[in-house]
Amino acid sequence: MKSLSDQRISREEVRGGVRIVPLGGMGTVTRNMFVYETDSQILLVDCGIGFPEYAAYGIDILLPDISYLEDKREKIVGMLLTHGHDDHIAGLPYILPQLPPFPIYTSKLTGGFVLDRCKDFEVAVDIRELPDGEFRVGEFAILPIKVTHSIPDGRHFVIAANGSTIYHGADFKFDSQPVDGVRSDLDRIRQAGEKGVTLLLSDCLRAERKGTSASESRIRATLEREIKTARGKFIVTVMSSNIHRIQQAIDVMEADGRTVAFLGRSIEQNVVTAARLGFLRLPKQIVNKRKIGKIPAKKLGVVIAGSQGQEGSSLVRASVEEHELIEIKPEDKVVFSTEPIPGRELDVNRAIDNIARLGADLAYSDADDEMHVSGHASAEEIKELIRLSRPRFLAPIGGSFRHMRRFWMLAAELGYQPDQVFLWENGQTLVVKGNEVTWGKEVKLAEVAVDGLGIGDVGAVVLADRKRMAENGIVEILILVDAKRRQVIGEPEVVTRGLVYVKQSKALLKLIAEETKRGLPRAVTNEQWGKVKSGLEKRIADFIYTEIQREPLILPVIRQV
Amino acid sequence: MKSLSDQRISREEVRGGVRIVPLGGMGTVTRNMFVYETDSQILLVDCGIGFPEYAAYGIDILLPDISYLEDKREKIVGMLLTHGHDDHIAGLPYILPQLPPFPIYTSKLTGGFVLDRCKDFEVAVDIRELPDGEFRVGEFAILPIKVTHSIPDGRHFVIAANGSTIYHGADFKFDSQPVDGVRSDLDRIRQAGEKGVTLLLSDCLRAERKGTSASESRIRATLEREIKTARGKFIVTVMSSNIHRIQQAIDVMEADGRTVAFLGRSIEQNVVTAARLGFLRLPKQIVNKRKIGKIPAKKLGVVIAGSQGQEGSSLVRASVEEHELIEIKPEDKVVFSTEPIPGRELDVNRAIDNIARLGADLAYSDADDEMHVSGHASAEEIKELIRLSRPRFLAPIGGSFRHMRRFWMLAAELGYQPDQVFLWENGQTLVVKGNEVTWGKEVKLAEVAVDGLGIGDVGAVVLADRKRMAENGIVEILILVDAKRRQVIGEPEVVTRGLVYVKQSKALLKLIAEETKRGLPRAVTNEQWGKVKSGLEKRIADFIYTEIQREPLILPVIRQV
Repeated sequence: MKSLSDQRISREEVRGGVRIVPLGGMGTVTRNMFVYETDSQILLVDCGIGFPEYAAYGIDILLPDISYLEDKREKIVGMLLTHGHDDHIAGLPYILPQLPPFPIYTSKLTGGFVLDRCKDFEVAVDIRELPDGEFRVGEFAILPIKVTHSIPDGRHFVIAANGSTIYHGADFKFDSQPVDGVRSDLDRIRQAGEKGVTLLLSDCLRAERKGTSASESRIRATLEREIKTARGKFIVTVMSSNIHRIQQAIDVMEADGRTVAFLGRSIEQNVVTAARLGFLRLPKQIVNKRKIGKIPAKKLGVVIAGSQGQEGSSLVRASVEEHELIEIKPEDKVVFSTEPIPGRELDVNRAIDNIARLGADLAYSDADDEMHVSGHASAEEIKELIRLSRPRFLAPIGGSFRHMRRFWMLAAELGYQPDQVFLWENGQTLVVKGNEVTWGKEVKLAEVAVDGLGIGDVGAVVLADRKRMAENGIVEILILVDAKRRQVIGEPEVVTRGLVYVKQSKALLKLIAEETKRGLPRAVTNEQWGKVKSGLEKRIADFIYTEIQREPLILPVIRQV
Repeated sequence: MKSLSDQRISREEVRGGVRIVPLGGMGTVTRNMFVYETDSQILLVDCGIGFPEYAAYGIDILLPDISYLEDKREKIVGMLLTHGHDDHIAGLPYILPQLPPFPIYTSKLTGGFVLDRCKDFEVAVDIRELPDGEFRVGEFAILPIKVTHSIPDGRHFVIAANGSTIYHGADFKFDSQPVDGVRSDLDRIRQAGEKGVTLLLSDCLRAERKGTSASESRIRATLEREIKTARGKFIVTVMSSNIHRIQQAIDVMEADGRTVAFLGRSIEQNVVTAARLGFLRLPKQIVNKRKIGKIPAKKLGVVIAGSQGQEGSSLVRASVEEHELIEIKPEDKVVFSTEPIPGRELDVNRAIDNIARLGADLAYSDADDEMHVSGHASAEEIKELIRLSRPRFLAPIGGSFRHMRRFWMLAAELGYQPDQVFLWENGQTLVVKGNEVTWGKEVKLAEVAVDGLGIGDVGAVVLADRKRMAENGIVEILILVDAKRRQVIGEPEVVTRGLVYVKQSKALLKLIAEETKRGLPRAVTNEQWGKVKSGLEKRIADFIYTEIQREPLILPVIRQV
């Protein structure tokens, strides 16, 4: 395992090689975006969004930091997209307007999803359908390889340039019985391996799990079992991009003689696109969501969005009886055909609790291991990818550090030496040159947050202030100063928000005002007010901490009159 | 299942019965506190704290709301404690000072933990050791029953008064091979059942899981397996109250020839108390934590606090190389002998990631199902409790609504009718009278939060303000008014925190100041300033939302000069 402390190489050493720069940062799982860079050209791979952890402080989503590309915009010759998940494509509407136009090569379904996303944002995008065989983008020779995942039509890419070959193995599993019958193209991986792969970048998210991940098609039996005991509506919630899961829900509902409805913007949009492009067979009996009420409960199947308990989603609104089109009743059955993403457990649990309150029958992964299968490769599948692609060097992607470490252990089981596996941290880059891989120079990556309409205008300072106010409130102290006499006028005025009940705080506010006065000099020159202000901030912070052990943001405002 | 809509009974109907009032609210799992009330006396059961969900806004802990007891303080004859977990005892230091003194009956170990907690807070507590057999507290006849759980020395209580018998079955499992050999007293439960139980209150937290929960003693084999491959220090993190888990870790370390160290205040305190009271056998070779460095890594075992990734815990500090006494090195092995509590997954994952970065070997529940066993009864154990206690009515406790609903399904499997099972919501009470149970009148329960030194002074309004500031920041607008002329002086001054970068916001602040001026009347009477202020709040809020789609807290301050 190569660590941060290894020596960095200078810019000159890259010449004739390929530099790989992850712009989403490593260890974050989401907001995937990779730069493949030669001396004269850049090929991008993926452009996803990330999701903030629970102390979100108003941040909606996170983006890859493209400042590395700033002085290299003209080098970009194109982009490849591996598959249609948001953490691989949903950054496009935000990022594309910041870059010059370039062609984006991807599979049919992924392209469809990208067009949907960009249409929502009214952003132009140049989507080119991926050839089946090898093709060139500038000086990069690219071989797409079909792989299975929890969304159809995914690809790995073998990328060759400057005499080096890199296998870009984003999210995958080797599903031996995929719902659409399209298996991962193991032969092509083997051929690439025989031809020679310098570096394998591989999904490692599920490296902790032994054996192989179960086939997606196993879910059908679970849904068939559940529908048998559904006395009223059969309601299934799934990730909206999991087209094969939706297919199986539809099939099971149809076989049970039910009319099918789709609820939730993301599911409705994805179903239309996937069906139009031939990736979803719609059932014969579909009902418009506005007419759900006209179908007898026992004859209705509903595929609904909100499987992660997302605020405002169709399922969450229905769970608190606030959905205008669907009512969950005691005879209905609600199936969570999903598993909570780490960090979303409480939201999912809350939705389940609320549905339990409505008296409906429930099935979910906490109570039943067969509710969900992962879309990621377990240990044996990862080892299979390594065996087939026979890389000289390896670097795990798409997982956090503990997953990368497990990946490293799997490589060790196959005989790889520690210095053949690169576990990269945020900002680290790799340089592939001939048959060697070394650490490249580090790049600085910032957190780029989207909040409301602003991209990147909510930085570390703003978030620190929000955190402080979130946990302790704010104390604002207004001081009027006679500009001529340089003296304070009257009493300081103290206003608080989020500190304590105003009723209970009157005495405290008075004490703060008195402490402020004690901290104010009789007369000062104009230049000194800044110093007075910061002294006051500290004095009042200490005073409040002593009084009530809280640390609100202190905001003195000195106004000259 | 009896629902909220069932008719309530009037106060008169309680006469001669027992009212059961949960003060911690139902469906919250934590902050357990129950009132057993006859016409003239009150017996309390448990007094725990709760933990806020992830949008904590500075709240440290939650307490049961004891306002129901306000006009009944003199009726309290005593309290029972079921076991020593914080969600059953840690409210005592906060609640006891608010109530008249009364005796608290509990087992030896629970009493020891209570004394530790109260000593920390310098709060007096009248702990009485529980007799083995039946005893009386006022008009309540109480029979304690030993049960196993993830902390030793727990009890169920059969509480009889006014001709009704209630089985209070808090957190338990039926461990057939407990580490200390002290099994749950099934005979006594059976005898209570034969004598007649009107109402069973039963733990339902793990009602979703089939079969029976594995024995705690199974963990020994897991630890033995893990220690075999520990090349350096063997570091085990556990819940600090899980004395039997600690015992097994100690035993395995000792058998491997290691000297044992304890790290973390909660673990150190609990180990001392449990050992003193005879619930923990200390190993022969113990090392003071300050001398850990003197023991060769291969000869050292460490039991460390922080298994839930708690900020500031020993393990978390060690994971980022900030612990003054211990350093985690690549040859060490760190075992998380625990499972994340729902809502703490990201904290636990972060700690694991950071330890992976240090290069240490890791074992944890996500990668190995044998790392943890639950302390709660699975479906078959719950059914066993019901079968043995043979209650006429049932009410699940200690779980959220989805668990209660599963409990209801288990009761149905045993032939109970829906109207024999009470699923209660926050504020609902039960009245047991003779051989009948009905809904009692509802009580109002508030969220009582502890923040810094204040108890209950952070209410809904304060938290709403904090949330607003957390997600959107604050905009403060200062307006000076000439008191005599009733006119605004000069320009409004706009200050923001947590909104956007100050550098980027200069233009915005100017626009807000201008919009403020447009919203100000030329002259107003004193009485009108309040109206001006609220009008301004709305105007500026709308303006900012239109400009940048954010909703900061708007705080206009009008100062008369």
